[in-house]
Amino acid sequence: MKEKELSSEEFFAEKYRESNIAEFFRRNMHMLGYSGPVRSMTTIIHEFVTNGLDACEEVGVMPKIIVEVRQLGDRDYVIGVEDNGLGIPESYIPRLLGTMLAGTKFHRYIQSRGQQGIGAVGAIMYSHITTGVPIKIITSTGKGKITTAVMDIDIKKNKPHIFEMTSVKGKWQGTKIVARFKDIVYQKGEQGVYEYIRRTATANPHATITLLEPDGNVVKFKNSVNKLPSRPKEMLPHPRGVSADDVRLFALASEQRKLSTFLEKSFSRISAQKVKEIAKRAKYVDFSMDPKELTHQQAEAIVRAFKDVRFIAPSTNGLVPIGEETIEKSLKEILKPDFYSVVTRSPAIYRGGIPFQIEVGLAYEGQAGRSKGKDTSSEVMRFANRVPLVFDAGGCAITQAINSIEWRRYHIGDFDNAPITVTVNIISSHIPYTSAGKQAISGEDEIMNELRFALMDAGRKLKSHLSGVRRDKLRDERRAIFEKYIPEVAESLSKLSGSATKKEIIKHLEKFVKSRARAKEDKDDKID
Amino acid sequence: MKEKELSSEEFFAEKYRESNIAEFFRRNMHMLGYSGPVRSMTTIIHEFVTNGLDACEEVGVMPKIIVEVRQLGDRDYVIGVEDNGLGIPESYIPRLLGTMLAGTKFHRYIQSRGQQGIGAVGAIMYSHITTGVPIKIITSTGKGKITTAVMDIDIKKNKPHIFEMTSVKGKWQGTKIVARFKDIVYQKGEQGVYEYIRRTATANPHATITLLEPDGNVVKFKNSVNKLPSRPKEMLPHPRGVSADDVRLFALASEQRKLSTFLEKSFSRISAQKVKEIAKRAKYVDFSMDPKELTHQQAEAIVRAFKDVRFIAPSTNGLVPIGEETIEKSLKEILKPDFYSVVTRSPAIYRGGIPFQIEVGLAYEGQAGRSKGKDTSSEVMRFANRVPLVFDAGGCAITQAINSIEWRRYHIGDFDNAPITVTVNIISSHIPYTSAGKQAISGEDEIMNELRFALMDAGRKLKSHLSGVRRDKLRDERRAIFEKYIPEVAESLSKLSGSATKKEIIKHLEKFVKSRARAKEDKDDKID
Repeated sequence: MKEKELSSEEFFAEKYRESNIAEFFRRNMHMLGYSGPVRSMTTIIHEFVTNGLDACEEVGVMPKIIVEVRQLGDRDYVIGVEDNGLGIPESYIPRLLGTMLAGTKFHRYIQSRGQQGIGAVGAIMYSHITTGVPIKIITSTGKGKITTAVMDIDIKKNKPHIFEMTSVKGKWQGTKIVARFKDIVYQKGEQGVYEYIRRTATANPHATITLLEPDGNVVKFKNSVNKLPSRPKEMLPHPRGVSADDVRLFALASEQRKLSTFLEKSFSRISAQKVKEIAKRAKYVDFSMDPKELTHQQAEAIVRAFKDVRFIAPSTNGLVPIGEETIEKSLKEILKPDFYSVVTRSPAIYRGGIPFQIEVGLAYEGQAGRSKGKDTSSEVMRFANRVPLVFDAGGCAITQAINSIEWRRYHIGDFDNAPITVTVNIISSHIPYTSAGKQAISGEDEIMNELRFALMDAGRKLKSHLSGVRRDKLRDERRAIFEKYIPEVAESLSKLSGSATKKEIIKHLEKFVKSRARAKEDKDDKID
Repeated sequence: MKEKELSSEEFFAEKYRESNIAEFFRRNMHMLGYSGPVRSMTTIIHEFVTNGLDACEEVGVMPKIIVEVRQLGDRDYVIGVEDNGLGIPESYIPRLLGTMLAGTKFHRYIQSRGQQGIGAVGAIMYSHITTGVPIKIITSTGKGKITTAVMDIDIKKNKPHIFEMTSVKGKWQGTKIVARFKDIVYQKGEQGVYEYIRRTATANPHATITLLEPDGNVVKFKNSVNKLPSRPKEMLPHPRGVSADDVRLFALASEQRKLSTFLEKSFSRISAQKVKEIAKRAKYVDFSMDPKELTHQQAEAIVRAFKDVRFIAPSTNGLVPIGEETIEKSLKEILKPDFYSVVTRSPAIYRGGIPFQIEVGLAYEGQAGRSKGKDTSSEVMRFANRVPLVFDAGGCAITQAINSIEWRRYHIGDFDNAPITVTVNIISSHIPYTSAGKQAISGEDEIMNELRFALMDAGRKLKSHLSGVRRDKLRDERRAIFEKYIPEVAESLSKLSGSATKKEIIKHLEKFVKSRARAKEDKDDKID
């Protein structure tokens, strides 16, 4: 039964075939988060809701998102997600929703939730694969015309297939997507839609999100903040962290005709003065040259010079954290902890010159942690640009950073079983997800460092709280022992002395005991 | 400083840009395994070596792979990987190495190491990004002409850029790729190149791999097996596990003009008789229809019918496991364990009708486990189609399956610190990696089940070994106590009886004690 050996030429003639990114993900839907019916359900909601929130942010309105999950049969649902955002112009609908990597946000240096141009098309592909039913998009850019499109994706071509596109007059702005899916399940629980939406609302207190559950239940997460968070600015890359190839890539995209002005215009924190400093260090590069002619070696010389020049830290108006106040407020409201601490680090840079920032919130006791019957275990809530990450915890830098902390140092002996909730939000114009499914963050060195610093900082605050608690407890115990014997001792003393009353002696002794207890504490602190 | 709000139309006109898969991965190189200098180094070797082994397998020769790592400066290396495989015809060189998703293997149902058409191009992209130096390919299909190409990839177009392509006469077959990389580091250690190659050699004992290390050291892993493993056959999808959309996709690709013959020709285990059974269950589908006209609803009816019909399990000649004998041999040679067990499961199916198979090897004590100074901890070696997986352990189904086992049941109280090595190999015509970096396997239900079954099976064997060890220990103790008193008792007895010598009495008593001890054991066994 030996198979005929093919020659190399025959082999390629027979087996060679190019494919496209939609086909690639069609075979690897799990890479986009479509593995298992519960996860697939949450992934769909996640893709449409993040797009909705981004669309609102782009147009500067308070987001009102309506999520409807209607069940048609076993593992058979219709999902609708509506936003009051930007709206999609008619001519862009097909490409935007029917072609992978035709996103608008992919190449921009701006903090947004979606960033790949893959997510929504992936969800539409999953609808196509599981039901074959086209999706429906209703959208308007607010100019008096509402467009409805019925469309599908041709996976083999990575191209949209439009069945119908009609317009009516009407005053509304926003987008609604309705699609049918099979092989998904609506389920409560930590990785289900309800919890996903709840966490989204927590991290986006300016948004109102209404969830229509399949059982007819309507849950409204009303905005608890009446102001839009400040708008993240589109940023230029910071010279720190860019590679030689990044510089060449930016140079090719630049309209400047001189290297010096290109550097000024294409990077943040590079002034004419800084260009001079760079030029002094990259002596063999002619700074009046056409940036498009830049060789890799010249770009390397510039990057080397970048490393020796001092630049101002990346701008803070490019990154918009949730903010200490808001995080504190939600920790207090939701977890009613005995203690909490919030740490917001300054923006930092990882490779590619991409700025990012870490926020950590830590809540202890009260309703913090996860309760399983009588036991409590620690809880970690991960966010990226205010989007909850509920899957792939094991492969995520946030989890890895938390596990790398010696919590014992902060008086948490057994972190896994402590009544503690740790929330971590990473903000960036480009979050380095480990895969297109966007559920775990890659452990870039700079990100790991910042995560650890923030966690340790929050840990230190917890420690001084716990030291206080421990101190109080010790003092109380010590005092209780002394105090137990005070009346007896006092009675003997009063009998012996005769002059002072028993009551006076007790009072004196108590005072003495209290002052001694305090002196002992000060000593303990020094050892601590 | 309020930014001007853009209308939706202006927004799209300004911000909209399509991109391609090479650009996508250019911004997300970490998704391909390029994060950190050690990992990046191993990833490059991994991509070229797996391609080399596949090329040898395609042509049916014993693989001879030469890996050369030469250091030019700090984090600056030249890497060369040579195989004696298929060779690439001249006209295919540019596309195959200069275009992402132009792989040959992507769409085939065959067990191979590479499968995405992304890996090697990704490595070439990393060379381009970090050095800007084009790569060199020397290749020959064995027809007397050796071609050398100097080329690069144009990431913006996802197209090759050929600088030079020349041919000379010469008798040789194979491919050699030489490329320069920066931002990588050669380092020993569990995730370094040496260990990666060592594990590759272990799982591919028919291959000879020579590693030229940067310090001039030459390591040769000679083949320990003189026979090629049987060649995996290209398989048709199994009807179990395919979705309606899979059926439509296959139907569109089929040349058959009738649904019935399409089903016979495009699936494994579907005979004319089975088609009749299917047709009986999918009553409203006309089995003489053109398969290209199949609707999603009709395809669903066929898939429903698939579920009710009994099919023979997937063919075993499509999947080629390492084999119990070979795994046993390497466990014994390398780890010299006190005990080992090897389990090979039968092939099973996961979604898409894709067959897969699990092999587990388990070694206990001897040199099993990982030693850290005086302490030992457990060690897990993961493989996929004989390729070692050394990163992303946390997110991998194999690790998750191992962690989900209650090892206590198998007499391993503390798995993490046990002197145990677990090797797991998953074989499939399409391994569901969690990301394009191919280092972790997605936790598909069917795969998790098979992993757990295999591990529990190996665990049971270990348990009976450990029970035996425990039993032996107890028996020895018991016997020692009895035997301690035998001479004394014997002496008294001999005095009393007078007739027998002391020596005879001891012999009798010892015999008695041994038989009693054995009886006691049998009883213990029943309780165990």
